[in-house]
Amino acid sequence: MHRAQDFRKEKVGIKIMTIREFAKLCDVSPATASRFFSGRGSISEPVRLRIEQMAKKTGYAPPDSFRGRRKTSALIVVIIPNFRQCFFNDMIEQLRTYAERMGKRLLIMPIDQSNPQNTLALISACEPMGVILLHESVDFPLADALSRRNLPVVVCGALAAGRRFSAVHIDDMMAAYDGTNYLIGLGHSKIGFLTDASRAISSGFQRLTGCRKAMEDEHLTFDDSYTQPGGMTYEDGYEGVAALIERHPDLTAIFAFSDDLAAGAIARLREMGRRVPEDVSVLGFDDNSMARRFSPALTTVHQPMEQIAQKTLERLANMQGAHDVSSLTMACEIVERASCRALDPSEM
Amino acid sequence: MHRAQDFRKEKVGIKIMTIREFAKLCDVSPATASRFFSGRGSISEPVRLRIEQMAKKTGYAPPDSFRGRRKTSALIVVIIPNFRQCFFNDMIEQLRTYAERMGKRLLIMPIDQSNPQNTLALISACEPMGVILLHESVDFPLADALSRRNLPVVVCGALAAGRRFSAVHIDDMMAAYDGTNYLIGLGHSKIGFLTDASRAISSGFQRLTGCRKAMEDEHLTFDDSYTQPGGMTYEDGYEGVAALIERHPDLTAIFAFSDDLAAGAIARLREMGRRVPEDVSVLGFDDNSMARRFSPALTTVHQPMEQIAQKTLERLANMQGAHDVSSLTMACEIVERASCRALDPSEM
Repeated sequence: MHRAQDFRKEKVGIKIMTIREFAKLCDVSPATASRFFSGRGSISEPVRLRIEQMAKKTGYAPPDSFRGRRKTSALIVVIIPNFRQCFFNDMIEQLRTYAERMGKRLLIMPIDQSNPQNTLALISACEPMGVILLHESVDFPLADALSRRNLPVVVCGALAAGRRFSAVHIDDMMAAYDGTNYLIGLGHSKIGFLTDASRAISSGFQRLTGCRKAMEDEHLTFDDSYTQPGGMTYEDGYEGVAALIERHPDLTAIFAFSDDLAAGAIARLREMGRRVPEDVSVLGFDDNSMARRFSPALTTVHQPMEQIAQKTLERLANMQGAHDVSSLTMACEIVERASCRALDPSEM
Repeated sequence: MHRAQDFRKEKVGIKIMTIREFAKLCDVSPATASRFFSGRGSISEPVRLRIEQMAKKTGYAPPDSFRGRRKTSALIVVIIPNFRQCFFNDMIEQLRTYAERMGKRLLIMPIDQSNPQNTLALISACEPMGVILLHESVDFPLADALSRRNLPVVVCGALAAGRRFSAVHIDDMMAAYDGTNYLIGLGHSKIGFLTDASRAISSGFQRLTGCRKAMEDEHLTFDDSYTQPGGMTYEDGYEGVAALIERHPDLTAIFAFSDDLAAGAIARLREMGRRVPEDVSVLGFDDNSMARRFSPALTTVHQPMEQIAQKTLERLANMQGAHDVSSLTMACEIVERASCRALDPSEM
């Protein structure tokens, strides 16, 4: 959008709004408007809201005074939700490896949900060439704030839930559809699902939709009682599987939306006296670096993390304008190891 | 050291060297000397060397012009070698949790060995209250560069190998002594060691010394052929254990200097047809978040990561001058799970 304006200014001479004019519309000083967009300095809440509404209404975004410097910056900021999920750590390691080859450096910031302006100010101070988000949700104030800046942002390994950014991720719906069909193909018809609890059109929602479609296509029972929404960690799997089994003691398979969830579920099932895969099959998701190290080694939906990392960095480097919100979607495949088994005809 | 100078200046009036005087000694402009210490801007290699030597000779360090701002900074830079070692990821998560409680924020930078000046410049730009190193070695140019700055630095979870910084870590020698004695107490006398390959007085060297002492105290065979030095990752354990077993097929126990190493070793032993712990006992080190999730769950030397993280942050916040190089050492204990077993008298 902004680039389009620049273009018009140069070639056709159409007048675009200056920050001075925008500030006047908001009834604030240009310095205050500038503070709002830069994230530096403090700003009162009523004023912040007033500027935010006017920016939405007019579509105004300030020109990026650092654009020249950013082009040559070797720094990329990566925003990570936590260090407890193996998938995030693996992805950072992949990004780091590939960034090094490109002569770029990563700066990793844990999400500070309470104060996105702090994080924004920090990002500004570093003048990175762009920002990578390892997670994005509609309830993510930092994403809101970032989307107002003229800075390239790519969501890596997840859907851009708010559709505010470019994203490089897998085809979650198809991957979950394939995963569910894999279990159905092994003879399972009573399947429980360990899912995330995100709102809006997220990776988790896409996956759940894929699972539902696969079950319905085969006329198998699927309703909310077969899903257990929660977080994506080992602990969530440990807790969640017990709830599923309590509601449906006859489940013969679990599809977990992360390998961490799957590992936690297997540990709990073992404590409950149910063997994996003899009594219950467990299918993971991610194929993270731990998946093959567990016992049983996880059968899981493989995400091509190397490619996702590489494409994310290439996209960031070649981005045409900060407001490119197109996505690159990759296919997944199922890696068969030891945590799922085919039912005998007598067991079906 | 620097604080002492400040003190003298205030109270006794002894003249200390200004950066102008120091630059004159080096035959460079004050601006160049300032660039050297700030890490901002470029500087030719011969000039850099000349200033470095003069700084060493005179002991000159510039006053910290950011001290006032740093006192109020909520930002802490954490330098991490990689994201492949579970111990580092766990430690960051602990640091993040405790930093949040203190109202501090972490900024995580992967080590850039090739260009420490880049990292230094970045650290300067962020004006953090201090820096945490998750690793320190004598072959670490960034540590050299950091030690010339008047910035609080704490090494977290490792020995400060160069003795240039304060450190919060475990008593590695005692922990390894106890670990070896634990295996000896189970009846093992043929023990192999998966160690790191660091130079100088490092955590790894301390551990190895503890192991050697325990073996010698019991008059058990211990020489270089019983140790396999390498990295600290799963892959290193997977490779290393095969080399140990090839040299000493009669080993009944392995002491691995990280849980990642132990997990890799167990996977390889299994492939070699040796059961853990039936045929070979494997003792880990760290008690990282994966240790209890493996099968068999790891018996391991527990590092008190929560306390180490907490003490590291407290130390950074309360540091009296950047040149405090004292260490805080904590005790470890052995957590018994399922990867080690006692030999029968007939097996000894």
